[in-house]
Amino acid sequence: AVEECENYFSSTFLDRRSDKRTDTDWLRGKQADASSVYIIFSNLCPLVSLIGTKESAQEPEIKLCRFQSDDVKEFLTRPDEVSLIFLGVETQLNKPHSVEQGDGLVAWFALNVEKLSTDQFERKYEGCYFLQPPMPALLQLVSTEAGILAQARSVLAWHSRYKFCPTCGGKTIIEEGGYKRTCQIEGCPSLKGIHNTSYPRVDPVVIMLIVHPDGNHCLLGRQKRFPPGMFSCLAGFIEPGETLEDAVRREVKEESGVKVGHVQYVSCQPWPMPSSLMIGCLGVAISTEITVDKTEIEDARWFTREQVVEALIKGNQQHLVVPPRHAIAHQLIKHWIGMNANL
Amino acid sequence: AVEECENYFSSTFLDRRSDKRTDTDWLRGKQADASSVYIIFSNLCPLVSLIGTKESAQEPEIKLCRFQSDDVKEFLTRPDEVSLIFLGVETQLNKPHSVEQGDGLVAWFALNVEKLSTDQFERKYEGCYFLQPPMPALLQLVSTEAGILAQARSVLAWHSRYKFCPTCGGKTIIEEGGYKRTCQIEGCPSLKGIHNTSYPRVDPVVIMLIVHPDGNHCLLGRQKRFPPGMFSCLAGFIEPGETLEDAVRREVKEESGVKVGHVQYVSCQPWPMPSSLMIGCLGVAISTEITVDKTEIEDARWFTREQVVEALIKGNQQHLVVPPRHAIAHQLIKHWIGMNANL
Ligand SMILES: Nc1ncnc2c1ncn2[C@@H]1O[C@H](COP(=O)(O)O)[C@@H](O)[C@H]1O
Ligand SMILES: Nc1ncnc2c1ncn2[C@@H]1O[C@H](COP(=O)(O)O)[C@@H](O)[C@H]1O
Ligand SMILES: [Mg+2]
Ligand SMILES: [Mg+2]
Ligand SMILES: [Mg+2]
Ligand SMILES: [Mg+2]
Ligand SMILES: [Mg+2]
Ligand SMILES: [Mg+2]
Ligand SMILES: [Zn+2]
Ligand SMILES: [Zn+2]
Repeated sequence: AVEECENYFSSTFLDRRSDKRTDTDWLRGKQADASSVYIIFSNLCPLVSLIGTKESAQEPEIKLCRFQSDDVKEFLTRPDEVSLIFLGVETQLNKPHSVEQGDGLVAWFALNVEKLSTDQFERKYEGCYFLQPPMPALLQLVSTEAGILAQARSVLAWHSRYKFCPTCGGKTIIEEGGYKRTCQIEGCPSLKGIHNTSYPRVDPVVIMLIVHPDGNHCLLGRQKRFPPGMFSCLAGFIEPGETLEDAVRREVKEESGVKVGHVQYVSCQPWPMPSSLMIGCLGVAISTEITVDKTEIEDARWFTREQVVEALIKGNQQHLVVPPRHAIAHQLIKHWIGMNANL
Repeated sequence: AVEECENYFSSTFLDRRSDKRTDTDWLRGKQADASSVYIIFSNLCPLVSLIGTKESAQEPEIKLCRFQSDDVKEFLTRPDEVSLIFLGVETQLNKPHSVEQGDGLVAWFALNVEKLSTDQFERKYEGCYFLQPPMPALLQLVSTEAGILAQARSVLAWHSRYKFCPTCGGKTIIEEGGYKRTCQIEGCPSLKGIHNTSYPRVDPVVIMLIVHPDGNHCLLGRQKRFPPGMFSCLAGFIEPGETLEDAVRREVKEESGVKVGHVQYVSCQPWPMPSSLMIGCLGVAISTEITVDKTEIEDARWFTREQVVEALIKGNQQHLVVPPRHAIAHQLIKHWIGMNANL
């Protein structure tokens, strides 16, 4: 029944079970339970190991290293240096191992520690390493784990950047399995009522493929940091008090000078650098002249359907390189081209 | 060319002109310019006045009081108690008055002051008042001003709640016309690179009308704080690392026990209490048994198409009251019923 396109970073085999976040006894029990799975981050970089080169893919695939409570117990006693969050429980369908005791639920946790070396983990995962820098390396994860990584990294990044109460500047502590931070200063206004200051942040971003009025060209731009030849969809943060459709029109106008009329939602993708939600749209241009905003992007151009098809099929092209299939920009471009999913 | 539905809180006649936010000379000039328009908030409640009762509508309509730089100059000298933000310039089409000097742009600003009395504003707007509490009173604004209110209130609420740097707890100052807060503590990690801690927060929320597998019932729930008889769409915050479609399925499962399959985006609505973006969807249920999560909602039920039509047409009904047309929940319900826009 579920027919939406599944973008990278959105596939997961965990059920978040938010009802368990306030069940401190259950959480404590699962933290100590031998069946529980821990994934580890050092400074927001996940500990991973190589699966080996899949024949079909040119790129190596990597997976998250999984540990047991016994492997990580030394960290659990240092809550000041360590952020611990509850990710959820394995869904029945994807349960790799079964637990017969207790409620039968296999709980997953993620730990972030300031700075770790791989030494102590090598015993269990020979050749394991921290993915550093995360991008574009994170795109090599097996796709079933990419959603778990997205969830874990976003929440852990929030803990690393939001240690203090934005309302009063006071210290905060982690609660509700990592989904809340509560101010420790008596009388702080954040303690009265419900305020977003206590909850993880998700930044909605629009990312859009803009189609030329002739229907045969699309607008792509490049940022200075892109690899040579690469162009991608324009994108920008949705601002307060703005619809996603208006954000598409505003950002395209700002960055390229092109006016956009109708906007249509296509699909979205969590982007855990640190905690964005990329909302993918198609938009129809109602003007064609390009004026590049050099402070935001380096270049923007109309590309023909043929140029785009060639870049999608053959990969590296002289004139145009598109982002990898893991990026929603790639999927939006493909969506426009109308090619089948086996491309 | 623009065919999307325009929900309340999304219509505006301002062009944000984000390029001007870093142009401090231009901003300073416009702040002092007699053509500029100021709107005023006391503790996040806007100063408004009555337009009078429109014949077609039962509710009174209200509008934002507009001031000139001269009217507010006393506040501009007290940046510690006052937040000042730049909202944008009037678009040509909707320019109520024309300016012949300078660049011809009419700039709008919003001011929030801790606690104000209406006394000093009565001279200009007899009977003006601060909308307090904002909900549901804010829904009475003329719709062309609702988008401006949404933008202003969201950004001002951010300033009132995020005065301190979440990364180090230090003091921050307003920059870029109100769209940035910068930490004043030397060496703070938030000053190296670009971090969301410096930018206004927008919280994406899913709000969804769930259709019964039989196609003839929809799932509505009620919160304790709702007026008697009112039921609305279920809704919930999108979590980090989650798509909006998965958020719909998760929240419906959590709050009502109903499983949802396919999800389709319909339209969205900014909701400035304090800074949400309501992302409206239709979802198709793949199970029908309801188990209400009493901590989040009070009740959830399947309603027939007939019950819903009656509530939409006749307003107050014995068995079901739906939210007012200003709420996206109303629009989603109407969308499902498939009635025409003149309802
Ligand atoms: N939540 C946010 N996180 C990071 N940068 C932001 C955010 N909101 C606004 N910005 C600004 O947006 C710029 C990127 O532009 P864009 O992605 O096109 O909106 C950044 O350089 C920041 O100045
Ligand atoms: N950004 C946020 N602002 C307010 N409450 C939040 C936020 N994120 C999560 N919550 C929690 O979500 C609850 C409301 O549930 P729901 O809207 O169904 O997700 C609140 O009572 C908070 O506990
Ligand atoms: Mg931009
Ligand atoms: Mg932007
Ligand atoms: Mg951009
Ligand atoms: Mg909920
Ligand atoms: Mg929720
Ligand atoms: Mg809810
Ligand atoms: Zn506080
Ligand atoms: Zn700081």
